[in-house]
Amino acid sequence: MTHFRPFALALTACLLASLPALADEAKPKPSLTPKEILAASKPAEWRTPDPDNLLVMTLANGHRVLIELAPDFSPLHAANIRTLAHEHYFDGLAVIRVQDNFVTQWGDPNDDNADRSKMKSLGTAKKTLPPEFTRPLDPKLAFTRLPDGDVYAPQVGFSEGFPVARDPANHEEWITHCYGTVGVARDVPPTSGNGNSLYAIIGQAPRGLDRNLAVAGRVIEGMEYLSGLPRGTGPLGFHEKPQQRTAIVSVALAEDLPAAQRPAVEVLRTDSPSFAALIEAKRNRVDAFYTRPAGKIDLCSISVPTRAKAGK
Amino acid sequence: MTHFRPFALALTACLLASLPALADEAKPKPSLTPKEILAASKPAEWRTPDPDNLLVMTLANGHRVLIELAPDFSPLHAANIRTLAHEHYFDGLAVIRVQDNFVTQWGDPNDDNADRSKMKSLGTAKKTLPPEFTRPLDPKLAFTRLPDGDVYAPQVGFSEGFPVARDPANHEEWITHCYGTVGVARDVPPTSGNGNSLYAIIGQAPRGLDRNLAVAGRVIEGMEYLSGLPRGTGPLGFHEKPQQRTAIVSVALAEDLPAAQRPAVEVLRTDSPSFAALIEAKRNRVDAFYTRPAGKIDLCSISVPTRAKAGK
Repeated sequence: MTHFRPFALALTACLLASLPALADEAKPKPSLTPKEILAASKPAEWRTPDPDNLLVMTLANGHRVLIELAPDFSPLHAANIRTLAHEHYFDGLAVIRVQDNFVTQWGDPNDDNADRSKMKSLGTAKKTLPPEFTRPLDPKLAFTRLPDGDVYAPQVGFSEGFPVARDPANHEEWITHCYGTVGVARDVPPTSGNGNSLYAIIGQAPRGLDRNLAVAGRVIEGMEYLSGLPRGTGPLGFHEKPQQRTAIVSVALAEDLPAAQRPAVEVLRTDSPSFAALIEAKRNRVDAFYTRPAGKIDLCSISVPTRAKAGK
Repeated sequence: MTHFRPFALALTACLLASLPALADEAKPKPSLTPKEILAASKPAEWRTPDPDNLLVMTLANGHRVLIELAPDFSPLHAANIRTLAHEHYFDGLAVIRVQDNFVTQWGDPNDDNADRSKMKSLGTAKKTLPPEFTRPLDPKLAFTRLPDGDVYAPQVGFSEGFPVARDPANHEEWITHCYGTVGVARDVPPTSGNGNSLYAIIGQAPRGLDRNLAVAGRVIEGMEYLSGLPRGTGPLGFHEKPQQRTAIVSVALAEDLPAAQRPAVEVLRTDSPSFAALIEAKRNRVDAFYTRPAGKIDLCSISVPTRAKAGK
């Protein structure tokens, strides 16, 4: 008798199969559920990620994780990660760390050794990079601002599919560390990250990381395969034994794959009316389960829908 | 070269072994790390959970999860859950749902059937309860308020170890849905929850649930065994096949266990100076990894430390 099935929350599992044909006159209304809003969305509200910005990670258990890079926020890191993927750097490496309510991190298991001489060569990729922890605020970059406020930053919203914070006084903006955000691991020196070890946020948004690490992008599909792993038992969630690690078969740049092998996915545009309607539907739920709508929404509690391309 | 080991984040894995003897003159300073703050905390800053409010859940894989009930916020639910545990209701049931970035839920697998006649008897426990979604604001209840603000509520802070929001205008307060919060699953009718199916939050705080569900308490140990489970593949993360469920050996009330079998744990008091120092250390990190302190902290990104009792 206790199903606890708030239907609107299906929004959080919004990888949809192909949708029915859309009527041109279909317009999202505030009273629609998220499922109805997505069903009524128009084809033009969806975008296909640029294959040059799309990483396809295949885990040893067969699961696929898709990561979209954010070159407008961290161009040098995106370029270096493309090089690493192009040269098959990640193939045969592993998930080396799963710290509960924090991050799943992958890279070279020997990265955690005192003796790093055994680490895999970076090939032609750079060993150090400028931080790229924030970028100069660009008024020309589309920014769909949330009116709900934020504990950490003066302004928050979405740009190009990413959750973003802005500080006009300091003329800077940055991608925030929300669930699914992919960041660049580093040592203490701010220039020590190069993209050879990446982490995805798997718990409550650790916004204290914002502006202290370069954000490479965001997981747009398969987050559950990174978040649903057993936690590491070593300090800070590092795995202690090789058999505890999840091996990575490959991380390929979609651009390097034959066209037929590229993931056929679309992401809802974050400057679209349907995305605005989804946010409003979550801010003020209309289904009968909720007796008191929240009236507000936190940036990091908003998911950006991904779906399979129609016909795929 | 990319360890990404912000040491202060050890706060999130703060189940500590026995601590060294404490000097009376030890006082937390703003410049201490979380580890140092905990090491310098005084015995009186820690409390032993009342065994009448402490649930001991043992999973089939041998892992132990400890949940502290919150009778000051949901007394009727606490009483019903005590009855269910006392009568071994949960023994032999299972984790029936793991929805990514949302909840892990446990209870009777037949709860998800169209035919609920096969469900386990509730024994002497009540089948319906008043909602207890909020409680009247009580100025006498200790409330350690955060000055950082909140997107959802006028005031937030901690009461008796729980993250709490207050709305003075409506004269009410409630435990917020943060990582580790344990809530009472229900159907659409607000009175349909009785505690026979409970959920723990495993992702970004779904604060939209606040004031819409009764909060039973909080996981104080073993959260990683609920959050690190493979996600359910059915709608809303329900498991589709019996073998995908994690079986529950037992859920016992500590009060019902022989004294020697009760968990020997302590929780840091949320009205203690050391807890305030921990929050400040996370709000403005002092370790070299962070080049730009956040300056703010969100209620749900604060963990309340649990440790083994000294000598245990």
